[in-house]
Amino acid sequence: MKNLLLKIEYDGTGFCGWQRQLNARTVQGELEKVLSVLCGQSVVLEGTGRTDAGVHALGQCATFCGDFGIPVERIAAAANAMLSKDRLHSGDIRIIYAQEAPRDFHARFSAVGKTYIYRIFNGTNMPVFLRNYRYNVKKPLDVGLMCQAGRLFVGEHDFAAFMAAGSNLKGSTVRTVYGLHVRQHEAEITISVTGNGFLYNMVRIIAGTLVDIGLGRIKPESTADIIAGCERSKAGHTAPPQGLYMAEVYFDEDTMMAAAENINTL
Amino acid sequence: MKNLLLKIEYDGTGFCGWQRQLNARTVQGELEKVLSVLCGQSVVLEGTGRTDAGVHALGQCATFCGDFGIPVERIAAAANAMLSKDRLHSGDIRIIYAQEAPRDFHARFSAVGKTYIYRIFNGTNMPVFLRNYRYNVKKPLDVGLMCQAGRLFVGEHDFAAFMAAGSNLKGSTVRTVYGLHVRQHEAEITISVTGNGFLYNMVRIIAGTLVDIGLGRIKPESTADIIAGCERSKAGHTAPPQGLYMAEVYFDEDTMMAAAENINTL
Repeated sequence: MKNLLLKIEYDGTGFCGWQRQLNARTVQGELEKVLSVLCGQSVVLEGTGRTDAGVHALGQCATFCGDFGIPVERIAAAANAMLSKDRLHSGDIRIIYAQEAPRDFHARFSAVGKTYIYRIFNGTNMPVFLRNYRYNVKKPLDVGLMCQAGRLFVGEHDFAAFMAAGSNLKGSTVRTVYGLHVRQHEAEITISVTGNGFLYNMVRIIAGTLVDIGLGRIKPESTADIIAGCERSKAGHTAPPQGLYMAEVYFDEDTMMAAAENINTL
Repeated sequence: MKNLLLKIEYDGTGFCGWQRQLNARTVQGELEKVLSVLCGQSVVLEGTGRTDAGVHALGQCATFCGDFGIPVERIAAAANAMLSKDRLHSGDIRIIYAQEAPRDFHARFSAVGKTYIYRIFNGTNMPVFLRNYRYNVKKPLDVGLMCQAGRLFVGEHDFAAFMAAGSNLKGSTVRTVYGLHVRQHEAEITISVTGNGFLYNMVRIIAGTLVDIGLGRIKPESTADIIAGCERSKAGHTAPPQGLYMAEVYFDEDTMMAAAENINTL
C-alpha cells in the first residue's frame, strides 16, 4: 500500500461541494469512484479542506492509501482520462499531479496553512462567461478602502464574527491570517488570504465585509472592532460561492510565509 | 411597431445552437420567449448568423419588430433580468444593447461581414475552467507555420473545400476573407477571421486546417492548392465548436475593413 498525495483543480459549478454525499455529485465522491476503479479496491480520499457547492479549487490537496497496477507518475493521466469520459460533466476535475508521500503524511493534518482567493468583477457589463467564476458587484468599489481594511485582518485573532451563524464548531475560533491582499486590474478585483486555518464561510464573510467597506456601507476603521466584537451580525454579508477558489495548500511554514508576503503569482 | 437591433453575447455551452427548435433550448428560442413577454405579443427574432451547439458569441446581432410598454433603452436590462431568472442556466445570454433601427434594417441582409475568433489552448495543462471555451491541442503548435498559411486565405476564393460535407447550400461557395490573423500569448493561440460571409463550418475547418499545419501534418504552402482544389477531403479536420466565437458583425464596409486590418482589440 502506498500513501499518495494528489493536487487537484476543479470547477465547482457542477458539484454539491467537496464532501461525499449519498445522492449528490461531489468532488470527493467522483474522485473516489475513479481512484477505486484504478486501484481495484475501495479508496477513501482525505482532502485538505471541504469546499461548498459552487466553490472552485486551483490547488486542493488530498491523500489516500492504495495499490496500483500502474506507476505513480501515470495515475494522474489515467484518472483524468476517466474523469473526462463523464458526458455531462466532462473534465471539470483535473488531477494536477499524484506523488508518493511518507506513510504518516495526511492532506489535512500535515497542512500548515492555505491560500484562498476571492474574485470579484466590478461593473455592470460582466461577460456571460464569468457568471460562474466571479462575484459581480455592479456598483463601483473603492479599492483603497478595501486595502486599508484588509490589513487589519492580518495576525492572530478570534474570528468568531467571520464564521457562519449556526456553525457547530467545537473548539477555538482563533485563527492566524498571515497575509491578505486586495488587488485590482481593470474591472477585476482579487482578494487573497493566507492563514493557518479558516472557519466555516470565513473567507466569504471577509470578502463580503470588504465589499461592504468598498461600497461605503461599513467604515474601514470599524474592522478592528468588528473582529474584536466576535458577533457575526456586526460583520458584512457572505459573498457568494462562485467567487471563491481554494488556491494553494502549504505543508511547510517557509513556503507559506513567502507566499503570504507576495501572492502575485496566483 | 418599432424595428429593433440587439447586440447579444452568449455562452453556447448550454444551448443546442442559435436556431429555434421545438424541444431544445436554443438562443433564438430563449430570446424570443423573453421578448414576447416584454412585448405582450409573439416576436420573431432574426439573427445575423446561426451558431452551432457549443459555439459562443461576443457580438451576435439580431433584429425584430415589436411594440413595448417601456423605453427602448430599458429593454436590454429588462430582458437580461428575465434571462437571469432561469435557475438552471442563469445569465448565459446577455443583451449588450438594444437600439431602434430604420424600418428596412435587417440583422442578416444589412450585414456586410463578420469577424469570428477561434481560441486554442496549446498545452497539456489546460485549466479545467477553459474546457468549454477552448480547443485543447496538447502537442506543440508551430505558430509561425500557421501565420504563413493563414495569409493565403485572404482574398476572394471559392471556399468549397472549407464547407462541411453534406451541406445543402444552393448557390455560390465563393466568399471573401478580408483578414486572417493568428496570434499567440503564452499557451493561448487566437485565430481571427473577417469576411463577407462564411460557409457552414468554414471557420472551424480553417481552424482545424491551421492546427494540422501547426502540427506539421499539412505543409503551409499546400494551402493555396487545398483552396483551389475545392475538395473537403483535402482540407484539415473540423476544429471543435467550443473554441469558436462569433465576435463582431459589421453593417458598414469602413468599420469592417479597419477591423480586418487589426483585430487586436477583440
